[in-house]
Formats: sequence, structure tokens, C-alpha cells
Amino acid sequence: MRRIFPFTQWLATYSRDDAASDFVAAIIVTIMLVPQSLAYAMLAGLPPEAGLYASMLPLLAYAIFGSSRTLAVGPVAITSLMTAAAAGKIAAAGSGAYVEAALALAAMSGLVLVAMSILRLGFLTDLLSHPVISGFISASAVLIAATQLKYILGVPASGDTLLKLVPSLLEHVAQTNLYSLALGGFALAFLLWSRRGLMPLLRRIGFAPFYASLMAKAGPLAAVLASIAAVTFFALDENGVKIVGAIPASLPPFTLPSFDAAIWLQLLPAAILLSLIGFVESVSVAQTLAARRRERVDANQELTALGAANLTAALSGGMPVTGGFSRSVVNFDAGARTPLAGVFTALGILLAGLYLTPLFSLLPQAVLGATIIAAVLGLIDLATIKRVWAYSKADFTAMGATILMVLLEGVEAGILAGVGLSLVLFIWRTSRPHIAIVGQVPGTEQFRNINRHAVITDPDILCVRVDESLYFVNAHYLEDAIYDMAIAAGTVKHVVLMCTAVNMVDSSALVSLESLDQRLKSAGIAFHLSEVKGPVMDALKHSDFFVHFKGKVFLSQFAATQALSRKAKGADQTRAPAIID
Amino acid sequence: MRRIFPFTQWLATYSRDDAASDFVAAIIVTIMLVPQSLAYAMLAGLPPEAGLYASMLPLLAYAIFGSSRTLAVGPVAITSLMTAAAAGKIAAAGSGAYVEAALALAAMSGLVLVAMSILRLGFLTDLLSHPVISGFISASAVLIAATQLKYILGVPASGDTLLKLVPSLLEHVAQTNLYSLALGGFALAFLLWSRRGLMPLLRRIGFAPFYASLMAKAGPLAAVLASIAAVTFFALDENGVKIVGAIPASLPPFTLPSFDAAIWLQLLPAAILLSLIGFVESVSVAQTLAARRRERVDANQELTALGAANLTAALSGGMPVTGGFSRSVVNFDAGARTPLAGVFTALGILLAGLYLTPLFSLLPQAVLGATIIAAVLGLIDLATIKRVWAYSKADFTAMGATILMVLLEGVEAGILAGVGLSLVLFIWRTSRPHIAIVGQVPGTEQFRNINRHAVITDPDILCVRVDESLYFVNAHYLEDAIYDMAIAAGTVKHVVLMCTAVNMVDSSALVSLESLDQRLKSAGIAFHLSEVKGPVMDALKHSDFFVHFKGKVFLSQFAATQALSRKAKGADQTRAPAIID
Repeated sequence: MRRIFPFTQWLATYSRDDAASDFVAAIIVTIMLVPQSLAYAMLAGLPPEAGLYASMLPLLAYAIFGSSRTLAVGPVAITSLMTAAAAGKIAAAGSGAYVEAALALAAMSGLVLVAMSILRLGFLTDLLSHPVISGFISASAVLIAATQLKYILGVPASGDTLLKLVPSLLEHVAQTNLYSLALGGFALAFLLWSRRGLMPLLRRIGFAPFYASLMAKAGPLAAVLASIAAVTFFALDENGVKIVGAIPASLPPFTLPSFDAAIWLQLLPAAILLSLIGFVESVSVAQTLAARRRERVDANQELTALGAANLTAALSGGMPVTGGFSRSVVNFDAGARTPLAGVFTALGILLAGLYLTPLFSLLPQAVLGATIIAAVLGLIDLATIKRVWAYSKADFTAMGATILMVLLEGVEAGILAGVGLSLVLFIWRTSRPHIAIVGQVPGTEQFRNINRHAVITDPDILCVRVDESLYFVNAHYLEDAIYDMAIAAGTVKHVVLMCTAVNMVDSSALVSLESLDQRLKSAGIAFHLSEVKGPVMDALKHSDFFVHFKGKVFLSQFAATQALSRKAKGADQTRAPAIID
Repeated sequence: MRRIFPFTQWLATYSRDDAASDFVAAIIVTIMLVPQSLAYAMLAGLPPEAGLYASMLPLLAYAIFGSSRTLAVGPVAITSLMTAAAAGKIAAAGSGAYVEAALALAAMSGLVLVAMSILRLGFLTDLLSHPVISGFISASAVLIAATQLKYILGVPASGDTLLKLVPSLLEHVAQTNLYSLALGGFALAFLLWSRRGLMPLLRRIGFAPFYASLMAKAGPLAAVLASIAAVTFFALDENGVKIVGAIPASLPPFTLPSFDAAIWLQLLPAAILLSLIGFVESVSVAQTLAARRRERVDANQELTALGAANLTAALSGGMPVTGGFSRSVVNFDAGARTPLAGVFTALGILLAGLYLTPLFSLLPQAVLGATIIAAVLGLIDLATIKRVWAYSKADFTAMGATILMVLLEGVEAGILAGVGLSLVLFIWRTSRPHIAIVGQVPGTEQFRNINRHAVITDPDILCVRVDESLYFVNAHYLEDAIYDMAIAAGTVKHVVLMCTAVNMVDSSALVSLESLDQRLKSAGIAFHLSEVKGPVMDALKHSDFFVHFKGKVFLSQFAATQALSRKAKGADQTRAPAIID
């Protein structure tokens, strides 16, 4: 009960003080969310009210099921872009079928998330490596910013990848509407400046810190209102400046996504990717914020909550939603203490949707575009790109492929290329493992690489450490490599394979070990193992390996060389105990 | 020179004695290969002469380029089945387009093999794990045997998977030709008995061992000749017994496979799989035989040689070829010393093709089918299936999937399912690695699992060994698992991660390590590493990891506990040297 409905954990002790804090946070988030809702609906190719509806009831659903106290849910830039990419394959943006596809996508995403929760499939997000997610977000931000240029220029360009978008923009650039460009350009400049410049300015002209911070967060709303005023006074909409247009002033409608099996099947891959990406982003924000206040987020419960939010969005005329990064940080910083802040925010959006839509209908699309660009530029993470480049060329390859594919082929191709390449590169890295010949570090029982340390070696004994599990992809290579090392070493009587890093020996490697044992025996060399881990030894004992394998298994490399060097010198012919871990 | 044309290594010292040995071996292989060539052409859905042509010039090509002294090349059962599956997608068996597709497949396979040799892509065969290959061969053998039942029954059944074949056989079983069934049944029984029973019988009735062995190997030929006699005397072909029919008596024709880009593209996946499977089988036979005589086989040169043999087959009216298992063993046992035995065999087949075709045209298809069934039953390797089941359920899963898919969906689906599942299962096994809490084995510097050994532990220090590389698929899991262990341990002041099995730390795991360090620090616990391998340490040093990470890196777990337990007890506050490998 407390697990499935986390609100039962805090509702009983909810105080007036909590309510005041949540209420203030809700006002600030509402001010931020109203223009964002309109903007992300536009980014998704949906009518503006879809964004507003997606910011009402889904927030209630999250408040009921969510385990994070401060996550702010709603439409976000990346999932809006993914919605546009997926729905665009079904129908033309603006058509009824397109809107229905977006609703179906929200419903499927909800079902996928709930199914992942029930089947405990949250681990699937582990397939999204950090470089791939980071590259995906940066590239998506660039792509989103590029798609918004057409609104700032006021031209009818189209395309959902840079390959299509750039030529289309170039084709139409001569038709640029200068009023649009001026409005969008000013708004963008103001928004970018206001992030850092507005609050110090407000403080300098005498506002108290709290109000200065509040007003600074209203920057986007101020830009919106100023642009509406400009449109009204100068009748810019009659001079070719495209405005949002009529928004129905209503409660969220009850909608049922159409259940067309063909369309659902076509949308399924997109719904899965959208769910995974949305969940990864949301849960990482939630965990970061929870850690700051020593609260806990239950990842599996978050799947349920985001699933419920998306199903709710599908049933109330919305669009896919997830936890937003900047929005949640604002909610947290503004003092939100419980998910009731989200409920208050939903009420705020509801009031705005009922009473302010005539105002927002005059909002120029160029300013919404500027809002989006200002929001997503912050998502471009060059520092991580540089860090990954410096740390690992393999990881950078996966990241670079993700970025390139997102820009050139779109979001889904990007994610799939990134995940696929990450896995291939991992397999590749395990296929030709590092092999070290080791010797004893003087005065210790430790054995280390002879090329890195001044170590003691015995000419009769070749100690080889393989830094990887033995499995089919590297088994043949390792068999040949160890054999060649033993032959190259000349006078060697014993080869000891130090298995500290061998976490698994699969059936193929078992065959290779037996073959290596045979080949070394033919060359007059005995083959032994040391430091075999418990689980690996259990498996070997359950096979017929030790029927053929006549070498010894030593507890440690130290024990191996002690026993074998004595044996080689004829001092002690007793069989050393084959102790294993 | 000696590498590209390995025959230059033995031709100069070739003696009359060598020639005599090679000649005898060639006679025996020829006797075996004539019916096999006709049978495998039938299995591939090709006219009988394609099998004969594939056993002439390709053997010369292999003799020029091959590095094995005793490998016998020609059409084999598995590649014939794969040829039928691939060509069957292009055209109906028996049509001209079908024959052309088979030629194109041989040409492409040749090009793929040569390309793999030049680009050093032989490692691609490492993706075929031992259980997958073994399962593939066993299942293919069952499938091949099933496809031959229609010849034994003398019915027009069809289908290239059990799903299609079994219903088709049941549909036609009432039309069984009893003469065919009798011929095929007797031939099969004789062939199966003759493997073990013929030689002892011949020895008992007084033949010298050499001649008894020679005659035993002629068993299939005897069955063939007896059945031809039966057809002739009883005019069985006029009673519905299907015979091979007219075979043109000619030298191999010069053929050029058609270069239709669409067909080549469609055949490419099949050509790649056929090349890989053919190469793996061939090179493993070659290596096994070479090891017995302390000769060496150069895997990369084998790619060239098999590529040349397939290209030659495509240019001389043949079909895809590779090194055959039983045939090579017979060649070896019969005393072949050099690839000239293959040249002599090619001459033998040529003579048979020129002068014996009228005889073979009367050969009943039922007997050829029996020959094939007798040959492939030996490929079904139940022992390996049992062994893999006993050793590893994961490996068995991949093997089982391969077997099921071959039988139900065909050879290509089977191989792809097997390789794909093997890789997925490997990733799966690395995603939730074994984690052990370790303690010191008394009297040694060794640290082992506290659950398996009586070890010494320090209540202030939690020593954790993770048995896997740290990478994106397991990073989050390990971060949480180690954190939870540290919190659960209660009084712990230090956590030491023993990195003996950590062969790689990727960018995602780096982030997780930093996050774990932060979380442990918040809980008042210091986090350290021990036994970090050289290559991993090099990478960490190149990153900004040590800017944030304030723990120590110890040469060994022993050094870690020495330093930390002294520190914890306040006896010695000097910073222990952070020695690393």
C-alpha cells in the first residue's frame, strides 16, 4: 500500500507549512510551464491545447503513484521531438490522424512503462550507456533548435533530420518574415541573457532575493507577454507573423486513442524507445534531487507512475509526458516538499487554460520557437563529449555514432545505432583481451606484469594472466596466444594460467582449454591453473574437464610457483594441495 | 612465395614413395567421392554433373593454395543443404535460374573467403561458438536426413524445413513406391552395417588388413553398383523407380555466373554464412589432422585456398565446396602425404565423369538418398548436446535455439539465432556479475570469499570483489549493490573494491564509481580500490577521476587492509603508498 501509493507516506503528516511551500513552488512552475506546454506541443506538431492538457491530469496521476517528492512531470523537449518523429511516419502534422497517433503513442508508452514495472524490466535502461544518452540528448537538442529556426524565420521549411531540414531552410530563407525574425531574435537574446543577467539586475534595482528569483523565472513568460503586446499593438499577425491561433478554453476532454493494430505495431518501437529515454531522464533527475534531501526514489515505482501519467495523458487529449529536468530543479529550488506541488501546478495550468487562452492565441510562433531554442541549448553537453573523448575512444565511437545518426537519420536510428555499437564494441574489447606474463613482487605474495614491475620469475615456470573471461569470442585467440608464448619462452616446463580475471569459462573455452592442455603436453609442458574463482570452479567440477586435465589448480599464484619450483628442482615431489576458491 | 603457394614447400623434395602413397589415397577417396558428388548435387537440388565438376578443378585450386597436406575438398552435406536453401529462394529447383544461382553462390562464397583472407577477417568465425556450431551441424544432419526420405519413398514431397517437409511427406506417403523403398532401405541398412561390420567380415574371410580396409571404404560404391545392377536386370526404372538420368560425359565446362546485382544482394547473407560455416568445418578438420603429424595449418591461407576452390567451382560448372570431414580422414588414413593426392583424386573423378556416366545414369535416387542419410547420421552429436546441457544452461540455450530454428525455420535462421542469442546471453551474464565479500586466508596474503573459506575480516573494513569488468550494462546495478552492502554492514568505515577481475572501466562505470564514492562519503564511509590492473589504471589516470576520487589505490588487498586497519586503530596515520599495477 505504502509502496504502490507513496502519497500515503506523507499525506497524514501534511502541515499548513508544507502547503504554503508547495503552493509557492506551484506558482513558479506554472509560470514556467504554460509557455513550455504550448512550445512543446508545437515542437511535437500538435495543437497548443495538447500541451496544456498534458500538463493537467497527468500531474495528478504522478502525484498519486510517484515516489519522488519533487519531480515535475509534463511534456519535455526530447520526448516531444520523438513524438513528432514517430507520428510523422503515420500522418501529416496537423491532421486528425497525426493527433490520434500522438495519443496512441502516449497510451502505448504508458502501457510499456507499466509493463516494464510489472515484469521488472527496468534493467533494459542499462543498455543505454552514459555516452550514448549524453550524445543522444546533445544531438537531439541541436536537431530541436534547428527545427525551430523555421518559426523564427517565419518560413514553411520542413524536415525532421538535418539532411532534409537544412536544404529546406536554405530554399525558403529568401522568404524570411522580418517581423518574425525580429520578435524571435529579440526573444531569444532576452531569454539567453535573462538566465544569468536578469536576477542580478533585479537585485541591483532593489528587489528582495526571493522576488528577484521568482521574477527571473518568469523571464519566458515576460517575453511571451511582451510579444503578445507587440502583436496586438502593431497588428503583426496581419503582416505575416504566424501566431498560435485559437485555443479552445475548456477542461481536458476525454479521449480514447484509436486501437488500429497496424498503427500500434508501427508505433511500438518508437513507444519503447520513448519510454526508455523518458524514464532514464526522469529517474536520473528524481534521484539527483532525492539524494540532496536524503529521500529515496524507487525506480520500479517510477515506471508505474510515469506509465500512469502517460495513460492519463492519452485519455485526456494530451501527449507523451515525463519528468522534466529544468522544471524539476525549479520546483525543488522553489521549495516544493511533496507531490501536492504538482497538483497545485495542474490547477494553475487548468486556470490558465480556461481563462488565458484568448491571450495566448495571439502569441507569435517565433517567440515559442525562441523559448524552445533557449531551453534546449542548455542540453548540449560539450563537456561530457570532451570527457568521453579523452577517456575512451571506444565509448566516444558509440557516442559519435549516436550523435551523427540522430542528426542525419533521426532520433530512433540514433538510439539504436548507439546501443548496438556500444554492445559490439564491448564484445570487441573482450575478444582480444590483455595478456600479461607475471612475476612475484619481491617480499610479497603478489604477482604482477613483468613489463610494469621489477618482479622475480622462474625460468621453468611461465605465469600468464589473462584479463578476461574465457568465452567463445576469445577462446581460439587465447588458446593460440598462450601456446605461442609457452613455445616462445623456450625452456619452460610449466605454464600456470592465473585466473583472477576469469569470471566465466563457457563451453567453447572449455574445449579450447582442453585443446591447449593437449598441445602443451605434446610439447612437453605441464599446464596448471591458479586462483580459479568459486563459481568457475563449481562449473568445471560439474563437467568432465578434470577427467582429461591433469594439471593442478592452486589457491594462489604464489602457491603455484612455490610448489612447482620445488618440484622442478626435485626437492619435493609431493603433490601440492589443489585448494580452490 | 612459400606462404602464398604452400606447394613450393614440399614439391622440391617430392619422392616416388610420396607419389605411391598419394596415389593409393587418391584411389580410395575417388571411390568414396563419386557417389558422394552425385548425392550432394542431388541434395543441393542440382543436376548430378554439378557434383562431379565441383570435385575436379576445385581440388587443383586447393592443391595450389592450401596449407593442409591432407584436406580433401569437394561438395559436402551441410554446404549442399545451405546451397539448396539459398538458391531455393531465387528460383525453383531444377530450373536454369536455380543452377545459375548456385554458381553465383559459389562465386560469392569464393570472393567472401578471399576478401576475409585479405582483410584478415578470419576472427569473424569466433562469433560461432562451439555449442552453436555443434547444434547447427546436428540439426542440419537431421534436416538433411529428413529431406532424403522422399527419395527413399519415391514420392514428390517438398519443403526445406521440418514444418513444411513433414506434412508434405505425410500427404504423399500413400504413394510410396515399394521398389524405391526396398532399394533405399536395403542400401541404408547395408551402409550403416558396413561401417562397423564389413571390415571384420572381410578380415574373417581372409583378406589382408590393407585390402579389407580398402574394400570396406568401397561399401557405398558397392551399394551403388548393386543397385544399378538391380535397376538394369529388373527394369525398375520402368516401374516408377526414379533414377539419376542422363549425365553428360564431358570435361568441366567453362561457366560464368550471371552478375545480376539484385540476385547477388539477395544471396549475399547466405554466401557469408556458407563461407563461415564451410571455413570453420574445414579448418577444424585440417588442424586436427595436421596436429597428428606435427604439421601446421595457416588459417588465413586456408581462407585463400577455399576461396580459390569456390571461385574455380563457379567457373567450371560446379557448386560450393569446402573441406569434408569424413573424406579428409579417409585421405589421411589412406596415407595421403601431400595435396597431390587431391590432384590424383581430381583425375579419378574426371575419368569417372568421362567414362562411367552411362552407368551412373541408371543409379536409383533412393540409393543416393540412403548414401546421404548414412553419411549425415554420423554428424548428429548427441554426446556434445548432453555435455553442453550438463556444463552450462546458458550455452545450452543458445545451442537449443540453433537446433530448433534450423529444424523449423531453416539453416540461415538457425545460425543467426544461435550467434545472436550467444552474444545476448554473454551480455546477460556480465550484467549481473558475481560479487563476493572477501577476507584474508589465515597465514597468507590471499583474500577469498567469506562464504567459501574460513577467513579473517575486520569489522571496520568491507572488502568487496566484483567478478566482472565495470561497464554500462552493469554499472548502475553494481553501484547500488555495493552501496547497499556497505550500508547493510553497519559499522564499516572503509569499503575496498578489489579489482582483480575488473578488466575495463568504461565511461558509464566511471560516472557510477564517482557517484558511489559520493554516496559512501555522504554515509561517512571512505571508498578505496585495490589490485587495479595496469591498463585500467592507465585509463583512469588519463581522466579526471582522481580529481574527485579521494580514496586510495592499493597494490593488493593485503596492503589495503594492512594500511586501513592500522589507520582505523589510529596506530599509524601516514598515507600508505598507492602502488599500482
